Amino acid sequence: MLVEIITIGDEILIGQIVDTNSAWMAVELNKAGFDIVQITSVHDQEKHITEALELALKRADIVLFTGGIGPTNDDITKQTLSKYFDAKLVFDEQVYADIENLLKNRSRAMNELTKSQAMVPDKATVIHNPIGTAPITWFEKEGKVIVSMPGVPYEMKQAMSAEIIPRLQKVFRVPVIIHKTILVHGYPESALAIKIAEWENGLPEDLSLAYLPNFNIVKLRLSAKTEDFNATQKLISNRVDRLRDILGDAILAEEDIPLEALVGRMLTSFGKKIVTAESCTGGHIAHRLTSVSGSSAYFKGSVVAYSNELKENLLGVKTVDLIQHGAVSRKVVEQMATGALQLMGADVAIATSGIAGPDGGTAEKPVGTVWISISTKKETLSRMFQFNLNRQLNIERTTQTALLMLIDLMRNSSSIL
Amino acid sequence: MLVEIITIGDEILIGQIVDTNSAWMAVELNKAGFDIVQITSVHDQEKHITEALELALKRADIVLFTGGIGPTNDDITKQTLSKYFDAKLVFDEQVYADIENLLKNRSRAMNELTKSQAMVPDKATVIHNPIGTAPITWFEKEGKVIVSMPGVPYEMKQAMSAEIIPRLQKVFRVPVIIHKTILVHGYPESALAIKIAEWENGLPEDLSLAYLPNFNIVKLRLSAKTEDFNATQKLISNRVDRLRDILGDAILAEEDIPLEALVGRMLTSFGKKIVTAESCTGGHIAHRLTSVSGSSAYFKGSVVAYSNELKENLLGVKTVDLIQHGAVSRKVVEQMATGALQLMGADVAIATSGIAGPDGGTAEKPVGTVWISISTKKETLSRMFQFNLNRQLNIERTTQTALLMLIDLMRNSSSIL
Repeated sequence: MLVEIITIGDEILIGQIVDTNSAWMAVELNKAGFDIVQITSVHDQEKHITEALELALKRADIVLFTGGIGPTNDDITKQTLSKYFDAKLVFDEQVYADIENLLKNRSRAMNELTKSQAMVPDKATVIHNPIGTAPITWFEKEGKVIVSMPGVPYEMKQAMSAEIIPRLQKVFRVPVIIHKTILVHGYPESALAIKIAEWENGLPEDLSLAYLPNFNIVKLRLSAKTEDFNATQKLISNRVDRLRDILGDAILAEEDIPLEALVGRMLTSFGKKIVTAESCTGGHIAHRLTSVSGSSAYFKGSVVAYSNELKENLLGVKTVDLIQHGAVSRKVVEQMATGALQLMGADVAIATSGIAGPDGGTAEKPVGTVWISISTKKETLSRMFQFNLNRQLNIERTTQTALLMLIDLMRNSSSIL
Repeated sequence: MLVEIITIGDEILIGQIVDTNSAWMAVELNKAGFDIVQITSVHDQEKHITEALELALKRADIVLFTGGIGPTNDDITKQTLSKYFDAKLVFDEQVYADIENLLKNRSRAMNELTKSQAMVPDKATVIHNPIGTAPITWFEKEGKVIVSMPGVPYEMKQAMSAEIIPRLQKVFRVPVIIHKTILVHGYPESALAIKIAEWENGLPEDLSLAYLPNFNIVKLRLSAKTEDFNATQKLISNRVDRLRDILGDAILAEEDIPLEALVGRMLTSFGKKIVTAESCTGGHIAHRLTSVSGSSAYFKGSVVAYSNELKENLLGVKTVDLIQHGAVSRKVVEQMATGALQLMGADVAIATSGIAGPDGGTAEKPVGTVWISISTKKETLSRMFQFNLNRQLNIERTTQTALLMLIDLMRNSSSIL
């Protein structure tokens, strides 16, 4: 079944916001057995929205609109769709009660604009939006489904997961899609492709393979559409067995798991606790680690020592080393790691120090120079990297690299923990 | 002049990558006086690309393709456009020399696939790509311009800035577009719309207004197209003056600036330094603050005290209060804030303690219960919130709310810093 996503809103077309919704929707729809045929971004204009819908209905079985359904005047999707489907806007008691309830919980008062959100097209099925005032509307026409939902990412995600995808799966018979993700570490994409070329060429036609590279990791995703779940599971499992023979230790995990969750799982299995001492990452490693539910079981805390003063006073970095070698140096990052272990009493510490940029680079240590150190009670391992990216990417890449270093360490020599 | 952006590549339609190119292009094109009429993402399929081009040429004066021009088999944009424009692919000595030179600098060898990049459509103007092997091609047809460029972000950006936008400005006469963004705090979107309804209705036709709500902030964006830059600037400035009369202190800033940068600017102007003591936010506030270039001038560091042990040992939270009131309590979050001030020697500290979820909630303190405290040498301000969201959103919302609390404090009573 083919889906077209239409995002509505001037803010996308003037570049004020990046459309992250569509990628999320594409992933979730894919998992549920639907294919995206096109993503279209249009203005808050009746003519443009209507035209986009007409064209989309020629290409797709399902058209999903996001955005343009706020209470203010610039949002006209509801009016436009009502006109297109020849529907009247009618007051919906249930939607009104939902909005009242929502406002009450947020200690906010009802006003005319919010009240107008309870006006819905009489030819649409209204889907409850528990976390926003804009109702979600579902239209059907000649066997096709058209849904209008909020553009606010968390409202959209809630609606898609809880209501829209399950309902689409009821209306359309879609094959079961099985995805199996293998996380591979240590090969650039092209080198991995050469390494597994024979295996890949031998895959049966109904198994498709995608390479998803991301910062030193390549996710291999095997996908199959099937009516026979068990047989296909078996087939995939068999192919993964062979892949394991080829790649061995380069396989980090046989599921689509974030590195921070993998770290957490390994620490839990060893019964060990972690802390971080962050300079250039500014708390980003701690943030990634604590994005995992239950991380308090193995993550004790972090010192973000952005100033040299805190590197000295809290982590015990020697003044002489800061002066002689600079904050971005092996000496300093190792003292940050060992100092963090001692200060916070953990089994392993990650420390980072680098020049995130855009300022602060020198000829000797240009922007993107980063030291990462991992320290346990028995050993300290440190490496320098040169990322040469922008500030945000230097921070993200440092975090990713530090997590990978730790995973490698735990896999190869867990005895040092 | 209207532009349509067409991004080509399966990776966007399966959600593997987020299309960040289009937003960047939209901003730069807007600045240069061009409007984006639509953004369309299509598959690497000849029929789909051709159809999208034909439709785009009905809407737009300029069609900009990104992506789909790599050397591998799945990339077919060059072949498709050659066919569409009835052009032959011919070997271009200059492009070949550029590619040779580029590979030499990267210590890489030429191979058949890379060599094939030097084949270009004979009806296109070829634009030099100094940082990639894929040539950029520029077609003209019936007064319209069609350009195909790489999808690799840094190659696309180089081509747009150095070549494509300057050339478009020579071919087309364009007006200037002025955007003015006002950050408003304290009004839900609908209440704001009612508050400024009269002002909004009185806006001249050539000034358009958009509401962009995001976590307790609404961005108001005024846009105008003009041939007379100064007169329009004056007009906008005049309307903003009146808006300031209506909204007063609710206006946080008169530009599109992230809260963390606003915090940084205010701290800099007061000459004050900040630290954070984070539990439920796990380093996310420190991460947001340090995402701003130059933040080391006012951000000293952070203690992420995820465990109670660290709350006690590092921040000096009293054991008795942890036992009597729990970690998520006014008593504890205030001691975290004052403890952080003392430990790290700053002028202001933000502390957070809450239940991010999905586990850890109780009847008395359900998931989403969060305490935020801001402490200076003179005063400590604390508030409890109930966010009721998922883990990621509870963390993000806590961070956003803490930054807003701090901004309010600094605006209303900077003397307490």
